[in-house]
Amino acid sequence: MAREDFRFIHTLRVRWAEADMQGVVFNAHYLTFLDVALTEYFRALREHSTEALGVNGDDLFVAHAELDYHASARYDDVLDIGVRIARFGRSSMEFRGEIHRGPEHLITGKMIYVFTDAEERRPAPVPEAFRKGADAFEKVAPAR
Amino acid sequence: MAREDFRFIHTLRVRWAEADMQGVVFNAHYLTFLDVALTEYFRALREHSTEALGVNGDDLFVAHAELDYHASARYDDVLDIGVRIARFGRSSMEFRGEIHRGPEHLITGKMIYVFTDAEERRPAPVPEAFRKGADAFEKVAPAR
Amino acid sequence: MAREDFRFIHTLRVRWAEADMQGVVFNAHYLTFLDVALTEYFRALREHSTEALGVNGDDLFVAHAELDYHASARYDDVLDIGVRIARFGRSSMEFRGEIHRGPEHLITGKMIYVFTDAEERRPAPVPEAFRKGADAFEKVAPAR
Amino acid sequence: MAREDFRFIHTLRVRWAEADMQGVVFNAHYLTFLDVALTEYFRALREHSTEALGVNGDDLFVAHAELDYHASARYDDVLDIGVRIARFGRSSMEFRGEIHRGPEHLITGKMIYVFTDAEERRPAPVPEAFRKGADAFEKVAPAR
Repeated sequence: MAREDFRFIHTLRVRWAEADMQGVVFNAHYLTFLDVALTEYFRALREHSTEALGVNGDDLFVAHAELDYHASARYDDVLDIGVRIARFGRSSMEFRGEIHRGPEHLITGKMIYVFTDAEERRPAPVPEAFRKGADAFEKVAPAR
Repeated sequence: MAREDFRFIHTLRVRWAEADMQGVVFNAHYLTFLDVALTEYFRALREHSTEALGVNGDDLFVAHAELDYHASARYDDVLDIGVRIARFGRSSMEFRGEIHRGPEHLITGKMIYVFTDAEERRPAPVPEAFRKGADAFEKVAPAR
Repeated sequence: MAREDFRFIHTLRVRWAEADMQGVVFNAHYLTFLDVALTEYFRALREHSTEALGVNGDDLFVAHAELDYHASARYDDVLDIGVRIARFGRSSMEFRGEIHRGPEHLITGKMIYVFTDAEERRPAPVPEAFRKGADAFEKVAPAR
Repeated sequence: MAREDFRFIHTLRVRWAEADMQGVVFNAHYLTFLDVALTEYFRALREHSTEALGVNGDDLFVAHAELDYHASARYDDVLDIGVRIARFGRSSMEFRGEIHRGPEHLITGKMIYVFTDAEERRPAPVPEAFRKGADAFEKVAPAR
């Protein structure tokens, strides 16, 4: 995939506290960056589609996360973080994320989230309204 | 004060992710270190005194925090963090903390916590049993 | 001071990972927020004044930090962080910071930074050009 | 794999700042926990084998990280983090990590690190002495 394939991109700047002694972003922080982008993805989705209301990302539990590190981000870099829903399962949702610095593709991420019943914390089916809202959101032409 | 003046010392090792590009611990992390030491202080207090049971540090809110940076901790340093209750107010408690690396005194901290009524989150008097338990704990001879 | 007294304000949104089990921002993270705002303050200063070039905040060491917690920020809050230089010493610089959520003043911060000789890490006089550039920057009417 | 299969286990306690509003450890922090355990793994390896001296984990770059979340760790939990080298490539090394809370297996991690030439930051062959030292270390009967 390329940056153009993402309907949604969140931009942030690397903080001083996030770079380590090697001068690069500490490996775990990329998961935090993806999490921040997902929060904004859900916000954009809710603004786009009233059908998606009621799901906000806070009730989801992460089941799997995966990062491929192609190149390192550094302090003060401005990063573009693209996220999209790659696939729905019965009660799960797979996200694909990419972190870019200008034309450079630094990180590829994959995250699987599971919808849960808030009271029992057991897997619950993906709400049909959410799936429709998300599909409609993704089909809109890429943001930039 | 000197390290010997602390009844309670918690020891931890600086993580890779906590050192910045200057090779030193990022300034905010010292507050996290003091927080970790306070958690252990409360644990030791509860083990020492049943009177102190019922207060665990999680119901307290921080009102003020202050750090003096004398020297920097570095990656992989083993730090001794002394904490003690310096003073009780009507509904507050002042902690003094010091971070040492062997004989070197790196950081001095001061934190003021306020006891709150869990439901209304308003200041509440320091529980008398807690004050007694803490006084008894502090009067025991220093740990090392 | 009030929000209007700040020449420079940086805005950020609280991340999920920054809120704790009490639903509020963990106390140490406010120092990180102030650090992020200071980075942006220095950027704005450099853009405003070529005289200030050559000082970028990374060569400064923090000597003291202080936070007063008036009210708590929560997950997803948008925070306005005002920072200004309150005072210059011979080799030091005192910052005043305030964190606001809309009309609410949540946090007051004070930070003292020391200019150092990069090679010996000893205190060095505040560069005269920097002081002039900063004074000129601060005298411009507040940002908003 | 089970906990008994790990030659090396590092134990740590979850900090207050590491639990989120759901009361569980924020997903990215498990990568930090694995990193802390790897640091200790390398320390144990250096103490065990002089052949392994000269490689300390700081010169390695992470190429891939992967986490499976089976169950959540909570604030104040004591976690046992087992790490072992699962496989050597020509210039890479695959780690397997597992995070346990008592008898419960919470997290499975996989990390691939690449040895690099310090000057050019290009992949370099795994030093033969390191491979031998690591093999000898792993063959010792599990720690507990």
